[in-house]
Amino acid sequence: MFLTDSNIPEPEIRQRIERFQNDLTRKALSGALILQKPDLYYFSGTIQDAHLYIPAQGNPVLMVRKSLERAASESPLERIVPMDSPGQLPDILKKNGHPVPRNMGLELDVLPASRYLKFQKIFPETALTDVSHLIRRVRAVKSDYEIGIIREAARLADQVFERVPELIAEGMTEVGLAGLIEAEARKRGHQGLVRMRLWGGELFYGHLMAGPSAAVPSFLASPTGGSGLSPAIAQSAGFRPIRKNEPILVDYVFVLNGYISDQTRIFALDGLSDSLMAAHEAMLDVQKTIMRTARPGTRAGELYGLAVERAAELGYGDNFMGTEGHRIRFVGHGVGLELDEYPFLARGQQMELEAGMVIALEPKVIFPGKGVVGIENTHLVTRDGLVSFSRFPDTVRVV
Amino acid sequence: MFLTDSNIPEPEIRQRIERFQNDLTRKALSGALILQKPDLYYFSGTIQDAHLYIPAQGNPVLMVRKSLERAASESPLERIVPMDSPGQLPDILKKNGHPVPRNMGLELDVLPASRYLKFQKIFPETALTDVSHLIRRVRAVKSDYEIGIIREAARLADQVFERVPELIAEGMTEVGLAGLIEAEARKRGHQGLVRMRLWGGELFYGHLMAGPSAAVPSFLASPTGGSGLSPAIAQSAGFRPIRKNEPILVDYVFVLNGYISDQTRIFALDGLSDSLMAAHEAMLDVQKTIMRTARPGTRAGELYGLAVERAAELGYGDNFMGTEGHRIRFVGHGVGLELDEYPFLARGQQMELEAGMVIALEPKVIFPGKGVVGIENTHLVTRDGLVSFSRFPDTVRVV
Repeated sequence: MFLTDSNIPEPEIRQRIERFQNDLTRKALSGALILQKPDLYYFSGTIQDAHLYIPAQGNPVLMVRKSLERAASESPLERIVPMDSPGQLPDILKKNGHPVPRNMGLELDVLPASRYLKFQKIFPETALTDVSHLIRRVRAVKSDYEIGIIREAARLADQVFERVPELIAEGMTEVGLAGLIEAEARKRGHQGLVRMRLWGGELFYGHLMAGPSAAVPSFLASPTGGSGLSPAIAQSAGFRPIRKNEPILVDYVFVLNGYISDQTRIFALDGLSDSLMAAHEAMLDVQKTIMRTARPGTRAGELYGLAVERAAELGYGDNFMGTEGHRIRFVGHGVGLELDEYPFLARGQQMELEAGMVIALEPKVIFPGKGVVGIENTHLVTRDGLVSFSRFPDTVRVV
Repeated sequence: MFLTDSNIPEPEIRQRIERFQNDLTRKALSGALILQKPDLYYFSGTIQDAHLYIPAQGNPVLMVRKSLERAASESPLERIVPMDSPGQLPDILKKNGHPVPRNMGLELDVLPASRYLKFQKIFPETALTDVSHLIRRVRAVKSDYEIGIIREAARLADQVFERVPELIAEGMTEVGLAGLIEAEARKRGHQGLVRMRLWGGELFYGHLMAGPSAAVPSFLASPTGGSGLSPAIAQSAGFRPIRKNEPILVDYVFVLNGYISDQTRIFALDGLSDSLMAAHEAMLDVQKTIMRTARPGTRAGELYGLAVERAAELGYGDNFMGTEGHRIRFVGHGVGLELDEYPFLARGQQMELEAGMVIALEPKVIFPGKGVVGIENTHLVTRDGLVSFSRFPDTVRVV
């Protein structure tokens, strides 16, 4: 009844859990209770309604409310048991050989307060601490299995971007074009949902806007915002008709088997002004500068500083990643099961790059009233620097 | 720069806040701090990155991190001020005439634990309590303004459903068809994102599956699940080709200006077996039975009981809303800015219907190995019973 051909393999899950167990041991924690969907998927292979207990030593226990059969068919974990309510947690853990934890980690950055307060009651003797940073550290370094999926997501994204010139026509609305591009993504297996960790972060595929719309600021931690369809969504495509000679920004994520590839390309009907073309070229230069410098061991914040410096040298200091008062202080972010993964190539970030990290690097120039140009590619951190997953040309695609 | 033609009108926001202030006063709370996007939008008219303080008496204060200008152009509130970090909250409130609250309400069902713990530090003298139930009660009863938007969303959904017969072809994949239908929705202004309140609840447009796929159970509190594209998404459309003589379930939400209309129709290439057709008719009977009985004052749980009883009388007791072990104990749910609003037409629910509530009613029969038939419409609770917003025929549409 259930599909199993894209299940996460058992050795993959085992290695992930071992890496996390090392952290738990180092932090002297008895274990951690995982509930959030991307974390749950990462460590168990299923997003069924479940609680996953990972002890510092020994076998994890996946306690499933719904659907138990589906979780059992998707997860390679050994111990998968039913659970009706969280009140049963201490008993189930005991039956599976785990004493009541002395210190237990929780995903406090995403777990709702009411659930946290309930866990306090269920585990009155247990100190509850935040392990979201530890989890995000483990998830930041991707395995070959994960890299393979992201590479395939980028390949499918390339196919979708190749279709864009055939779909654009003067006078069609941004959201009309968005729907056509999204249909191309869907038939290739895009799962639709783009998950973000930050509470209140939300995104529908990405950003697609033309001309001045793209430069409208929003709530999102992103250089672009967009007029959107209404204040209820307040970002990305709206009903504005696409015109000639304006940059059409397509910053669209492809999500395959949960994993994200993030890329931006600029399209234009009948070309762009020389100044916009030059600004786009400058962003390709910033991209190259970072790609050449980034190595395992480089601090993420250094790369941000380098990008700002290079953009200023090229004459785009005032418009790089936003204008004064609307500037975003980053130039890239990790991607994986979530769009906002470690590391953040942001001001002051001390986290060092490691081989296997996957980073969306997105130097962009924002011209209020005119539009946005620039580039985004998803890159693998290797010993020799950043390697892009994308093949679609970085230049402005004139239609 | 910002669109303002779909801003929420000032009297609308004022009335919402007054209703909530009455609740705060009745519960002897000093005020409430609102952060969650749908709640923030409901009470302020903007989803910009902001904290909204609603005192039991007096003027609310909207404290905005990003973008202040956009929030000011979208929200009709009088006091809109900048805020860099939550640590400034007590000072900003004081400057706006509000003493440090003695008791403050928070959205503890959705607020992440780490933010709750931070508020405990920022307001050490304040008792923090959960007001999510109060907020959901206020939001459950819709104004004429809200009803007008939902009516329009349902009208657009009718247009999209009218296109489905032209889009379906034998052999195309579920997800391929999904993309085409989604493109039709997008060009009509569907915002894409479907918001759910329950943590871990997630949905991409809704459920589109054909034949046995539709009957595959999932983590979601829904009678249908779906094979999905992978365990990372675990619901709705997959790569299975659509075949003749199987029920094609299109349970798709339309979201206009934040507001949801939810409807399900069954399509079939070349017709369905008599037994599936009869089961579908039985669900229309269950729908009619509930529509006739529901009135302001009827308890939500009673309607669920009535649905179960009628389904059993008609011979579908074993398959109504799922089979043994996979059965969902509801037959409908409120909709508005979120898909899972009050009231829940669920087992034991004591909440009474009120005029102005908007309910998606979805009696369905699940046949494992065969598929799903049934109906869903979004209805307004009036003094004379339920009135559906949909015009698209309820019967199986044979293509």
